[in-house]
Amino acid sequence: MTEFRDLDELRRTCLDLPGGDTEASTSALTRQATLTKPPGSLGRLEELAVWLARWQGRSIPRLDRVEIVIFAGNHGVAAQGVSPYPPAVTAQMVGNFAAGGAAINQLARIAGAGLRVVPVAGLDPTADITLAPAMTGAAFLSAVSIGFSAIEPGIDLLCLGEMGIGNTTAAAALAAGLFGGDGAAWAGRGTGLDDAGLARKARAIDAALALHAAAQDDPIAVARCLGGYELAAIFGAVLAARLHRIPVLLDGFVCTAAAAPLARLNAGGLDHALVSHRSAEAGHGALAAALGKTPLLDLGMRLGEASGAALAVPILRAACACHAGMASFAEAGVSTAS
Amino acid sequence: MTEFRDLDELRRTCLDLPGGDTEASTSALTRQATLTKPPGSLGRLEELAVWLARWQGRSIPRLDRVEIVIFAGNHGVAAQGVSPYPPAVTAQMVGNFAAGGAAINQLARIAGAGLRVVPVAGLDPTADITLAPAMTGAAFLSAVSIGFSAIEPGIDLLCLGEMGIGNTTAAAALAAGLFGGDGAAWAGRGTGLDDAGLARKARAIDAALALHAAAQDDPIAVARCLGGYELAAIFGAVLAARLHRIPVLLDGFVCTAAAAPLARLNAGGLDHALVSHRSAEAGHGALAAALGKTPLLDLGMRLGEASGAALAVPILRAACACHAGMASFAEAGVSTAS
Repeated sequence: MTEFRDLDELRRTCLDLPGGDTEASTSALTRQATLTKPPGSLGRLEELAVWLARWQGRSIPRLDRVEIVIFAGNHGVAAQGVSPYPPAVTAQMVGNFAAGGAAINQLARIAGAGLRVVPVAGLDPTADITLAPAMTGAAFLSAVSIGFSAIEPGIDLLCLGEMGIGNTTAAAALAAGLFGGDGAAWAGRGTGLDDAGLARKARAIDAALALHAAAQDDPIAVARCLGGYELAAIFGAVLAARLHRIPVLLDGFVCTAAAAPLARLNAGGLDHALVSHRSAEAGHGALAAALGKTPLLDLGMRLGEASGAALAVPILRAACACHAGMASFAEAGVSTAS
Repeated sequence: MTEFRDLDELRRTCLDLPGGDTEASTSALTRQATLTKPPGSLGRLEELAVWLARWQGRSIPRLDRVEIVIFAGNHGVAAQGVSPYPPAVTAQMVGNFAAGGAAINQLARIAGAGLRVVPVAGLDPTADITLAPAMTGAAFLSAVSIGFSAIEPGIDLLCLGEMGIGNTTAAAALAAGLFGGDGAAWAGRGTGLDDAGLARKARAIDAALALHAAAQDDPIAVARCLGGYELAAIFGAVLAARLHRIPVLLDGFVCTAAAAPLARLNAGGLDHALVSHRSAEAGHGALAAALGKTPLLDLGMRLGEASGAALAVPILRAACACHAGMASFAEAGVSTAS
C-alpha cells in the first residue's frame, strides 16, 4: 500500500499533477470532423470521445476495462439524528453488495464493469464532526492511502461511489467548508429526511463549521475535519487515477464533495473527472457548478453506490463506438455540406 | 401490408386506442417499494420500470427484443434552400446505414438492438409544402401504412428515427400547424444552417402555414399537408405500437413532431411513448413540453437517425435490471427507515 508519510507530502503531490495527452486529443478532434454526421451533431458524445482520448493518451479511446469502486464508511455525526436509517445499514449494504442484491450490482452488469467494495477503517465511525475533527491526521492519511492504493494502472475508466449512513451530512459540511455557505444551503434530505430531520442536519453542519472554522483556509484540513473515511478514500482514488492518467466518473453529491478538495488545491485537479449524474440531493447542482462541471445525466436519482456513474458508462461506450466505428464522408461516398 | 382504406378509418383507429395494463404497473410499483434503496432514490429508473410494466403488460418487464426502425424520405421543400446538404445525401446515408458506417450502426450495437431502415416512397420527394400539400390523401395513407405494417407484435421496445434532407423544415411546419406559432418560433439550424439559411427556412415555413391554413383544425390534414413520407410512416409506426402495446422511444425533433398528431387527436395517444433525448434543434424542448414529455437525456445531440433513442436504451435496461434483480429489504436483512 502506498502511504503518504505526512500531510505535506500529500499536498505536494496534489500540486504537481500530470496533464492530459494533447496530441491524442487533437488527433481525436481531427478525426471527429471527418465522420459522417453534421459537425457537432453528436453533441457531448463528441466531447466525451475527445476527453477520453486526452486522458487515456489514445486517439481512439477504448473502454475494455471499466472498474467501479465503492468505498464504505461510518460517521459519528449519525448520532445527531441526521439519517432515517441506523448506522448498521452501512455494513448491511456492504453485505448486500457482496451478495449481488443492490442496485449497483445490476447497474454494473449493464455497464459491463467490474465492481469492488472497500470498507474503510473497518467501518468504525469517524468522530462526530460537531464535537471533534472527523479524523486525526494519521487516520486521514491512512484512509487517503487506502483509496490511493486501491487504484491500479491499466484501467480504461474508473467509476467512484460510496456507502455510508450519515455521509451526506459530512459531504454538505465539506462542501460548505470549501465553497462557503451555511448548513441550510448545503443540507439535503439524503435517504429521506423529513422537515424536522432536515433542520437537525443543517444545525449539525453549522455546529461543525463553527467548530472547525480554522480549517477553512486549507482544503486538506477541511477534508480531514469535516469529511469521513470513505470520502478521504475517494480523494485518494481520484488522485491515484490522475497520476495513472485514468479518466474518472464521479457519482453524486458525496462523491463529488469528496473529490472537490483536489480542485480547490489545484485548479485543473479534476480535469480528468466528470460528474456523471446530477443528484436530486439538494446541494449537488451547486457543487457541480462550483467545480465547473455539467453532469451528463439528470434522472432524479439520489442513491449513491456509484449508481449514477455506472449509468453513464453506456453513454461513454456510445461515444467511443461512434468515434472508432463511423465511416468518414470520403469512405462512405456521402456529400459534404455546401 | 395493412392498408388504411381512407382517412376516416385512420382517424377512427386513432380515437379508439387500448390503454396500458394497470394491474402490471400496480404490481411493479408495489415491488419497487420493497427493494433495498430509499424509496424513490432511483428517480426516473423507478418510473421507467413501472411504465414498461404498464405497456408490456408484465409486472417484471424485459428488453430481450429491442428494435430500431429508421424511416427515410425526401422533401420537395429542400428546393427552398433549407438545408446545407443536397437531397442526394438521404440515399447516400441509407447506403451508409446498410454498410454499417453511420452513428446509429454503432449506437444500435451498444444498445443491443436490431436496426432496420425503411426508405419510404422510393425516396421520391414530397411536393414542396410552400406550393402544394406535401402528399395526396392516397400517398399519405400509403406512407402511414408502410410505417404501420413495419411494426410486428412481440417487440419489447421500439426505437423510432428518421433520415431526410429537409425534414426539420417539414417537422417545424407540422409542429406550428398543430400547436400554433410561426416559422421563426419553430425553425432550427437543422444540420447546420447559417443565419441567412435559418431566415429562409422560417420564411418557407410561414409560406407553407399560410397556404395550408385550412388544414389546421385537423391533425391528420396537418400531417398530410405539412409533413413528409418518413414522418407519416413514423405516425403509422407509433400507432401500430400502441395497438400491439409496444412501448416506444421517440428520437428528436422530427420524430416527435411526426408522432404529435396522435396526441392532438387523442389526449392519451402518446402515453406509450417517451421522448428519449432533448435535441439541440431549436423547437424540440417546446414540442416535448407541449406534449407533456420530459426527455430522458440532454446531451446536445441533433443528428436524428434514432441516435437519441438508441442512446436511451441502456437507461431502460438499467431500470429493468434494478427492478428485476435487486434484493428486498427482507431478503437482504437490511434495516428499513425509522
